[in-house]
Amino acid sequence: MNDRPAPPRRRTLTTADYVDGVRKGDRMVLARAITLVESRNPAHREQAAEVLSALTADAGKAQRVGITGVPGVGKSTFIDTLGSNLTAAGHRVAVLAVDPTSSRTGGSILGDKTRMARLAIDDRAFVRPSPSAGTLGGVTRRTRETMLLCEAAGYDIVLVETVGVGQSETAVADMVDFFLVLMIAGAGDELQGIKKGVLEVADMIAINKADGENERRARRAAGDYRSALNIMTPRTADWRPPVVVCSALANTGVEDLWSRIGDHREMMEASGALTRLRQRQNVRWMWDVIEDRLLDRFRSDDRVAAMLADLETAVESGNMPAGVAADRLIAGFLDD
Amino acid sequence: MNDRPAPPRRRTLTTADYVDGVRKGDRMVLARAITLVESRNPAHREQAAEVLSALTADAGKAQRVGITGVPGVGKSTFIDTLGSNLTAAGHRVAVLAVDPTSSRTGGSILGDKTRMARLAIDDRAFVRPSPSAGTLGGVTRRTRETMLLCEAAGYDIVLVETVGVGQSETAVADMVDFFLVLMIAGAGDELQGIKKGVLEVADMIAINKADGENERRARRAAGDYRSALNIMTPRTADWRPPVVVCSALANTGVEDLWSRIGDHREMMEASGALTRLRQRQNVRWMWDVIEDRLLDRFRSDDRVAAMLADLETAVESGNMPAGVAADRLIAGFLDD
Repeated sequence: MNDRPAPPRRRTLTTADYVDGVRKGDRMVLARAITLVESRNPAHREQAAEVLSALTADAGKAQRVGITGVPGVGKSTFIDTLGSNLTAAGHRVAVLAVDPTSSRTGGSILGDKTRMARLAIDDRAFVRPSPSAGTLGGVTRRTRETMLLCEAAGYDIVLVETVGVGQSETAVADMVDFFLVLMIAGAGDELQGIKKGVLEVADMIAINKADGENERRARRAAGDYRSALNIMTPRTADWRPPVVVCSALANTGVEDLWSRIGDHREMMEASGALTRLRQRQNVRWMWDVIEDRLLDRFRSDDRVAAMLADLETAVESGNMPAGVAADRLIAGFLDD
Repeated sequence: MNDRPAPPRRRTLTTADYVDGVRKGDRMVLARAITLVESRNPAHREQAAEVLSALTADAGKAQRVGITGVPGVGKSTFIDTLGSNLTAAGHRVAVLAVDPTSSRTGGSILGDKTRMARLAIDDRAFVRPSPSAGTLGGVTRRTRETMLLCEAAGYDIVLVETVGVGQSETAVADMVDFFLVLMIAGAGDELQGIKKGVLEVADMIAINKADGENERRARRAAGDYRSALNIMTPRTADWRPPVVVCSALANTGVEDLWSRIGDHREMMEASGALTRLRQRQNVRWMWDVIEDRLLDRFRSDDRVAAMLADLETAVESGNMPAGVAADRLIAGFLDD
């Protein structure tokens, strides 16, 4: 029973192995580097910090585009089509995901590479599912670091997808240069609506599935969204979010859509706005991480844990002012 | 030169003085209690916590309504009219403000009681300007505590106003039972627009200044906003935010508007949603305060301050990953 050869043991990679492998664009090393930055093991965290520090100067050169849309709008097909167009044009495309509800073992909809049939077997594409469930802050942090690794590995376009849940759109909008919202015309009630907060961060709305008999309805829906956007203040004076129609299935409108994203980029580069946006995002990112980790430490602190349940109940029922409970917990945490 | 009598020295109030005075509805003691909770002095903070703890059980009984609108929509006149209607109907009305850009000495637009000519001299009304400039979290915390004090003093309606700046609307929406957005028809460009995020939290939109020749335009604008809201998902299944017109100057439509707010309250009370909303708000409030004070402590920490400038510059320019800088700062702060 023991004559089967043991499976080859995966060689432990040194920090230099990671750095060199990623720089060379070695997909296997890139995948393992991402696993490293996603790890919660303290030793891994330390090595991850070394790898990221060494590679930071190689990153930042990609065009970063966020894509959102509720299930049913054809997001996977859209990304498969857009990504394949881009690799055919000579680009190297990384597809990442932010889905705080995903779980590696639970079969996340975003974890399934087979959703993107062509990109999954495309040598010039790299598809990575969402880090497994955690706080949005944690998932966001790991996705940002994964983006950094992909850029260092030479991917010049990074598509970050997210589902329309909670605050994940805002988090993704905050790590990309352009944020695209996918919609479709006249589906069930839950699809007709658009989460109001999403309009706040949209740089473009695309009505997908504009093919066959659906095309007219898609164009009408586009008109409705245009009117809705018109009475709202644009995010920047220089860019009014366009509303376009496309069919990812038929690959119509997708090229035009991408060229408009290119217009936006040119405008942002020419005015210096892209540099300023990235700098702002970097600093905000640091503060997000500080907040996230500080609160993580707070929540997992033994002294806090011992007091929390009682104080939270007292505050919830209105028997104790929030500030009083907060002060007691912080005093416990910081050993005041 | 020295024969003028010294001004009477303000008597120091004990915690019991504060608690009794507020409970009796003594306006002078209430005003001083608010000053106490707004103080950053550690001794005051301690006494403020005692006062708030003693009064918490007396609070929570008011109807809490948030009101926003950019300068020019007639917010002060609206609140003056609405508040006077309410005191005339036997209510006691407190008007508070959240304006993180205000400064007591700088002459904040919200700090000026004379904006509300009738309420300012109305015995049944209590008008308090925004706590002076600070972080939004800090201003929000102090306004929530002020609301608690006003409720304990017997004010059964609390109006919390905010200007349309930054995240202050969301912060106010998070401390009230109902959030009203004031608009006007066809003013200058900056007034025609509505900040997209505001729609997310609006329970009602009121087009003000619907008087004289302006009335028709106001009704048309209301129609436009109704269409815009229609294609968006409502915040709760039970309530579709209505769009109404009114004239605060002519006091038309204001009574109808208030009766709709009453409808909303009845619905929320009958379904138990109000209790659940308040509980959720209380717990979120506690976590907001924790986050705010923990980050305050972090930012004012000497070890952090010594490292911050260099690390922030490195992160901004993209020379250091945000996570690495964050870890170093946190290690310094927590003495790891």
